[in-house]
Amino acid sequence: MPNNKTAQALAALDSARDATEASLVEWLRIPSVSAQPNHAGDCRRAAEWLVRELAALGFEAGLAETPGHPVVIASHPGPEGQAEGDAQHILIYGHYDVQPPEPLELWHSPPFEPVVTDGPRGRRITARGAVDDKGQVMTWLAALRAWHAVAGAPPVRVTVLVEGEEEIGSPSLDPVLVAEKARLSADVALISDTNMWAYGEPSLTVSLRGMVYVQIDLRLGDRDLHSGLFGGSAGNVLNLLTRILGELKDTDGRVQIPGFYDGVAEPTAQERAAWDALGFNEAAFLGAQGLSVPAGEKGRSAPERLWARPTADVNGIWGGYMGDGTKTVIACEGHAKLSCRLVPGQDPEKVVEGIRQFVQSRLPADAKFTLQVFGKAPAVAVPPDSPWLVAAEAVLEEEFGRKSVRTGGGGSIPVASSLKGVLGLDCLLMGFGLDDDQVHSPNEKFELDCLHSGARAHVRFLGHVAR
Amino acid sequence: MPNNKTAQALAALDSARDATEASLVEWLRIPSVSAQPNHAGDCRRAAEWLVRELAALGFEAGLAETPGHPVVIASHPGPEGQAEGDAQHILIYGHYDVQPPEPLELWHSPPFEPVVTDGPRGRRITARGAVDDKGQVMTWLAALRAWHAVAGAPPVRVTVLVEGEEEIGSPSLDPVLVAEKARLSADVALISDTNMWAYGEPSLTVSLRGMVYVQIDLRLGDRDLHSGLFGGSAGNVLNLLTRILGELKDTDGRVQIPGFYDGVAEPTAQERAAWDALGFNEAAFLGAQGLSVPAGEKGRSAPERLWARPTADVNGIWGGYMGDGTKTVIACEGHAKLSCRLVPGQDPEKVVEGIRQFVQSRLPADAKFTLQVFGKAPAVAVPPDSPWLVAAEAVLEEEFGRKSVRTGGGGSIPVASSLKGVLGLDCLLMGFGLDDDQVHSPNEKFELDCLHSGARAHVRFLGHVAR
Repeated sequence: MPNNKTAQALAALDSARDATEASLVEWLRIPSVSAQPNHAGDCRRAAEWLVRELAALGFEAGLAETPGHPVVIASHPGPEGQAEGDAQHILIYGHYDVQPPEPLELWHSPPFEPVVTDGPRGRRITARGAVDDKGQVMTWLAALRAWHAVAGAPPVRVTVLVEGEEEIGSPSLDPVLVAEKARLSADVALISDTNMWAYGEPSLTVSLRGMVYVQIDLRLGDRDLHSGLFGGSAGNVLNLLTRILGELKDTDGRVQIPGFYDGVAEPTAQERAAWDALGFNEAAFLGAQGLSVPAGEKGRSAPERLWARPTADVNGIWGGYMGDGTKTVIACEGHAKLSCRLVPGQDPEKVVEGIRQFVQSRLPADAKFTLQVFGKAPAVAVPPDSPWLVAAEAVLEEEFGRKSVRTGGGGSIPVASSLKGVLGLDCLLMGFGLDDDQVHSPNEKFELDCLHSGARAHVRFLGHVAR
Repeated sequence: MPNNKTAQALAALDSARDATEASLVEWLRIPSVSAQPNHAGDCRRAAEWLVRELAALGFEAGLAETPGHPVVIASHPGPEGQAEGDAQHILIYGHYDVQPPEPLELWHSPPFEPVVTDGPRGRRITARGAVDDKGQVMTWLAALRAWHAVAGAPPVRVTVLVEGEEEIGSPSLDPVLVAEKARLSADVALISDTNMWAYGEPSLTVSLRGMVYVQIDLRLGDRDLHSGLFGGSAGNVLNLLTRILGELKDTDGRVQIPGFYDGVAEPTAQERAAWDALGFNEAAFLGAQGLSVPAGEKGRSAPERLWARPTADVNGIWGGYMGDGTKTVIACEGHAKLSCRLVPGQDPEKVVEGIRQFVQSRLPADAKFTLQVFGKAPAVAVPPDSPWLVAAEAVLEEEFGRKSVRTGGGGSIPVASSLKGVLGLDCLLMGFGLDDDQVHSPNEKFELDCLHSGARAHVRFLGHVAR
C-alpha cells in the first residue's frame, strides 16, 4: 500500500502523461546510432539532452568523456536533511544509443520521426529506440519528475548512469565504472531494458545470457576467378565458408564449437518446474513471427532454450556477386558475422578461442583467416533471494494487480556483468517491453500503456524502498 | 605453305597493326554490359559499331532485333564470280557483350577506358572485354580487313554472327538461329572465345562444359528478429542456408545434388593418356592465383576435373547485417547464386530439378524457397576427326611453329550447343586468350601479341580452306 507521498507522486505522474510522451518523442528524434561513426554527434546530443533533463530535477549531472561516446552520470542525494549514510542508494542504468535502423525501406514511418498510432492495446509510439532503450529510460525519468514535483527530490539517494554504447558492446564503459567507482557505488542497480512476460503481466528477469560477437573474414586466392576456367581445380571461398558455418550445429541442434558447453550447468528440477508452470506457448511465440518449427537443441523446453542454453547464430553473410542476373565467378573473399549467446559457466574468451579453432581446423592450407572480435560478455544470474527482488515483486503486484513472474532473459546486457564485476552491484532487471515490440527490427514500438505503467511502478518502487 | 594471296594478306595485316589496335580500343570503350539493364543502349551501340565495320568490307550487314539485345548478322558471298554452291561457307561466331566490371575499386584503370601497357610478354590492352570477347572477335575482323585489302573479298563465303547476350546465357539467340537458318547454314562454325594452351602454344578446344545458373532465395519468418530474445527458439535462415550449401559436396569433393552424375561418362584411357601427356602443371596454374590446394573430386587429374567433370560453385551469397560493427539480428532472408558446369551426358533441366530437390529436402516446414533459373546449356563435344579441326591444326602449326594441342574447355559457350542443335553445325573452337587474362575479373587484358597472332592464324585459315 503506497503511503501518502507515493500516492501524490502517482497522481502527479498521471497528470503529466502528455508531457512524458512529448518528452520521449523529443529524445527519439535524435538518431543516436552508436554503431555508425557518422552519428557520433547525434549520440552526444542525445546524452546532453538527458543531462539537461536531470539537471532540471536538481541532479548533479554531466558527461563522463570516453574514447567513444560519452556516459551520462547524474546524482541526487535524496531528501534534504537526509544523511548520506542513512539513505538507500539506487543506481539506475540505461542507454541512450540505439540499433542501426536498416533496412530503411521496411519502416512504415521514418525511424527517427516518432509517430503515435492506435494498436490492439491502445496507443503506441513507433521509432528506433522507442522501447530499446529510450522509452524504458523514460519510465525512470518520468518517475523522478513526479517525485520532484511532489517532494522536490527523489525519496532515496539516486544515481543515474546512462551510456551510449550498449548496442555496440559497451567498449568504453568499464574504465568509467572504475574511475567513478565512488560515485556509482550504490546498494543495487536497476536496469530497465527487458520485457514483461506479456501485456499486463509483469516479470522480473533473474538471469541474462552473455554474448560473444565476431566477424569471420576468409580469403582464398589473390583475385576473383572465372568459374569455367577454374572450376574443379580452384578452391571456392564461398563453398568453404558455407561448409564451415553449415557444421556449426549437429542434427540435434548442438553447437559444435570446441569446448562450447564446458562449464554449462544443467537447469535444476526446480527451475524446470518453474518454467513449465509459466505455460510458455512457443507455437504462438513463433507464430507471431511467421515461424512454426522451433530451432535450438532438441529435447529441451522453450524457456530452457531461450534462457539457459547457449546459441550460435549467423547474423550476416556476404561474398561474391550479389547484383542482378549472373556472374560466373569464383570469389576470393567471404565474410560472416557470428554471435553466440552465453549462459553462466561459459568463459567468453574461451568461446572466442573455440570459434577460432572451429574455423581454423576446417581451412585448407592456402586459405587466409581473420577473426574480428566485436564483443565479449559473460552471462549474469541475479540472486533469487535478494531483498530488492522481493521489493520489486511487491510493487509490481500493486501496480498490475497480479503476482509478477521470474523469468530468464534471452538477450544480453553486458553492463550487468560489468556492474557486478567492477562495482560489486547486483542488478534488478525490471522492464516493460513486450515481445512484439520489434526490438532491433524495423517499426520498433513501445505501448504507451507500458510506458505509463512502468513509470508508475518506478514511482512506487522509489517510495517502497525509502521506507 | 601459304599461297601468294595469303602471304599478301598477312603482309597487309601486319602493316595494319596500329589500326587494328586503335579499332579495338574504340570498340572496348562502349560499356556493353548485357547483365545490367541500364546498359541496354550501350549494347546496341556496340552492335551497330560492328555492323558499320563489316559493311565497310562489302558485307551485307545488319541487326536482327530480339526481345533483348540485337544480334549482328553479316554475310559476304566470297570472291566475285564464285558460284554460291561451290564456295566453302564458314560462320564466324562471337559476342559483343561483356561481363559486369564490378568490383570497380579493384581495377587499376577504368574498365571502359582501355589502356595499353607493357607486361612480361610485351604490350597488352586492359579493359573489360579486352579478350572476352571483343579482342577475339577483332582477330577475325582484322583478318577480314586484310583479305579485303588484297583481294576485295574474303576467299570463301563468310557469315558473321555476333550476339549481345552470351554473358547472360544467350536467352534471345535460338529464335534468331531458327528465323535466319537459311542465311546461317554454313559448313562449319568458328568460335574464338577460348584460350591457348600457353603463350606461344596454340590449342584447339574439342569439348566445352555446359552450365546451369540459379539463384536460391530463402525466407524464414516475417521479419528480422532480435537474436537474444529469439535465439534458441527461432529458426535462423542464414544458419539454414549455410547448412544446405555446406552439404553440396562430400569430403571427396563429390557433388551431392540428386542425380547429378547420371549420364556422366568416365573418360577413356586414351583421353586420360592424352591429358597426362600435356604435362598440366596444376601447382603453377593455381600458384599464379595465390592458391595451392586443388579443389574438385579427389583422385582425378587436373585436366579431367577442369574439362570432363561437372562442378557446383557458389558464386555469391548474402543476407543479414553486412555493415560496420554489430547487429544482433536473426535475419529472415538469405540468398545465394549457384552455378554448375556440366559435361556431356548431363541434362541441364534434370540438374535444375536436382538442385531444387536438394534444397527443398533440407528445409524446415516453415521456410519459403524460390529458385530462379538464369541459364541452362548442355555440354558440347567436337568430333575428333573433323577435317576442319585438321585444317585448323595445320594453320596453327604454320603460324606458331609447333603442333597445336587438343584440350577441353572448362568454360561454357552455350551457343555451341545451339548452333549444333538448330543449324546442325559443328564448331571449331580456336582461341587466343591466355589463362592469366583475368577473364570475368578486374583488370581483364589481352596480349597484343596474341591479338596479332590470332589475326594472322585466321588470315591463314581463310586462305587454307579456300583451296
